[in-house]
Formats: sequence, structure tokens, C-alpha cells
Amino acid sequence: MTRGLFLVFEGIDASGKSTQARRAAGAHGAMFTFEPGDTPLGTDLRKWLLADPTPMEPETEALLMLADRSHHVASVITPAILQGRDVVSDRFFASTLAYQGYGRGVDLAELRAATDLAIGVCRPDLTVLIDLDVAAAAERKARDSRDRFETSDLDFHQRVRDGYLAMAEQYGDAWWVVDGSSSEDDVARAIEARIATLAWSHA
Amino acid sequence: MTRGLFLVFEGIDASGKSTQARRAAGAHGAMFTFEPGDTPLGTDLRKWLLADPTPMEPETEALLMLADRSHHVASVITPAILQGRDVVSDRFFASTLAYQGYGRGVDLAELRAATDLAIGVCRPDLTVLIDLDVAAAAERKARDSRDRFETSDLDFHQRVRDGYLAMAEQYGDAWWVVDGSSSEDDVARAIEARIATLAWSHA
Repeated sequence: MTRGLFLVFEGIDASGKSTQARRAAGAHGAMFTFEPGDTPLGTDLRKWLLADPTPMEPETEALLMLADRSHHVASVITPAILQGRDVVSDRFFASTLAYQGYGRGVDLAELRAATDLAIGVCRPDLTVLIDLDVAAAAERKARDSRDRFETSDLDFHQRVRDGYLAMAEQYGDAWWVVDGSSSEDDVARAIEARIATLAWSHA
Repeated sequence: MTRGLFLVFEGIDASGKSTQARRAAGAHGAMFTFEPGDTPLGTDLRKWLLADPTPMEPETEALLMLADRSHHVASVITPAILQGRDVVSDRFFASTLAYQGYGRGVDLAELRAATDLAIGVCRPDLTVLIDLDVAAAAERKARDSRDRFETSDLDFHQRVRDGYLAMAEQYGDAWWVVDGSSSEDDVARAIEARIATLAWSHA
């Protein structure tokens, strides 16, 4: 049996990443999944991981994220791919490197080794990075919810964005960057043009 | 202020490690702590970590253990040591290397890097390894509780014991091995003779 495709969406908060990941999964009949938290263990961890302000050191946060990820890979992503299902995930390993590594200053070399422990041989066929200016993301976030970025958050999100862009350079063809500043439909069309040529299992 | 001492007890299940760690802490007025689980986050993780049979892959288990440990180091062990309190811990980083690494086959190099992420600069002044033959541990366990090692467990615990002994060699003077096969009081006396000379903050 042909194995399924594994497509990942990454980006800073309010980049539109989750919406676009769901649209891509829907358009191609793929399984949609997300991190952190799309398993019973993950649901339990999620309440710690998404607590704001975080009660945890960045290293603890990173290791919990990686524990969640390793379980997600073994119990959801790998079985689906091996059964020939296409999988679209909202966030994957780059999120930990971007947020806890570039954003919160956790040692990147140690984090990469721990990431390898978590994901083993499971690599995305393509990672779509939805890039958005931090000021634009902050404005979108203030408009769409009662949440807003704190001023100190702006620096943090800038480091996260820069980290994502650095990884996009580093991983070359395994990543593709799309401008997330236009309308949801325009971004979806740009993404569809890029991913239409991937070897989807379903039409 | 003088920093406190950090003493760790390691060993296979039923080696008497927890009992001896408590006795040593009591004898020297030190704080007693344990892993996994001696924090609110840890308590929450403990129910996943101690589930039998484990619902998790060994990599997930290792990463959860390390998340628990990094939080334990940052919120319990380091503050106590910096305040000049002596700390005795039942298990520390070697448990993850022994159980998930040597015992369950998780890549040791990646596990060591992830361990460094978890514990940072916090290293024990001394690790006491209570060594016990696996058959003797199995007999003790069958006598003391309704639990018993399964036959497949014997191989697993043998790998864990061998891993502990390999680490004791490797870490040299930072570890001390005591024969755990004699009576609780005899083992306690042997341990006391070794640790009495450490630089305890309290008499």
C-alpha cells in the first residue's frame, strides 16, 4: 500500500495557520490533526501547556511539548500514514524550535536532539510556513478576540517569526513560505496552487 | 551562604532505594524528595508514568520523565540547595537513562542530550547506587506486595541493573555502589559510613 502524505502548517499566533490547515485537509480528504493535545495524554498536557502565564520553565515546556509530540507521532500520525491516509497537522516539530528555542532561549542543539527523540523517522513531506508581520498579527489578534499581545510579547513573537524564517532557509525545499497578509481566501488559493501537485492519496 | 548538598539514591525496583533515601535524609536533617511526581505538575504526570501496562512508547515516557525532572530541578531542588538546604532525592537523571535507555532501548545519545536540557547545571554531589541481584529483587517484591515481576520483566530489570552498573563505572567518583542484599539496617550503616564525611549543612 502506498503510504499517505504528511503536510504540516506552521506560523506565529494569528497567522491563519490553523484555518488554512483545516481548509487544506478538507480540500484533499486528509486527516486533520494538531499539536499540542490531539490525544488523551495530550489533552491532559494541554491544560499545562496553554496556561497563561505559563507556570513552567521553558525547558519543562519544551519537554512536555516533545512528550506530547512523540505520543502524537506514534499513536496518530504514523499509523494513519502507514494505512495510506494523508495527514495535515497544525504545528509539528518546528513549533518547539521556534517557540521554546528561538523564542524562549532553550539551547537549540539540545532541543534538536530531543526533537529527534520525539519524532524518530517521521518527517513532513512539506512544511508550509504562513509568514506574517508581528504587528499585523497583533492587530488581527486584537480584532478577533479579547486577547492581545502584551508589549513584551511583541519581542517574543518577533524572535519566533525570525526563527521560523531561519528554519525555512535551512530546510530548503522541505519548506515553503507563503505571505499570510492577504485575505483568507487569497492565502488559501496560493497554498492550493503549491500543494495541488503533491502526491495526495485521494483526488 | 553555603549551598546545600545534593545526594541521589538510585537502584532497581525493590532494591531498598526509597527506604534508604528517607533514612539518610532523616539522619542528616535534609529535605527528602522523589521522582517522578513531587510537584503539582509531577503529580499529574505520575498517573500516566506509573500506569501499568504503560500506554506509552518509551520515547514518550522518557520525555515526560524529563519534563517532570526539569520542573522538579527548577522549582524544588535548585531553590532548596541555593538556600543552603541539603537535598536527598529518590531517583534522578540516571533513572531515565537506566529504565528508558538501557531498559527500553531509547537512543542513549539523544537521551543524554535531552537529560542535559532537563537538568542544566544541577548535578548530584554523590549518587548512591543500591545494587541488587534481579532474582533477589523479584523475591523481595513477591514477599512484600501482591505485585511480582513477570518473566519478561526479569530481562528488563536485568538490563536496567546492567545499565546502572555501567553508569557507576562511567561516572567514577561521582557514584558509589553499595551491596543492597543484606538487611535494611546493615545497608543503612554502610551508607552512613560513606555519606557521613560529605559536607552536610546540618550536623
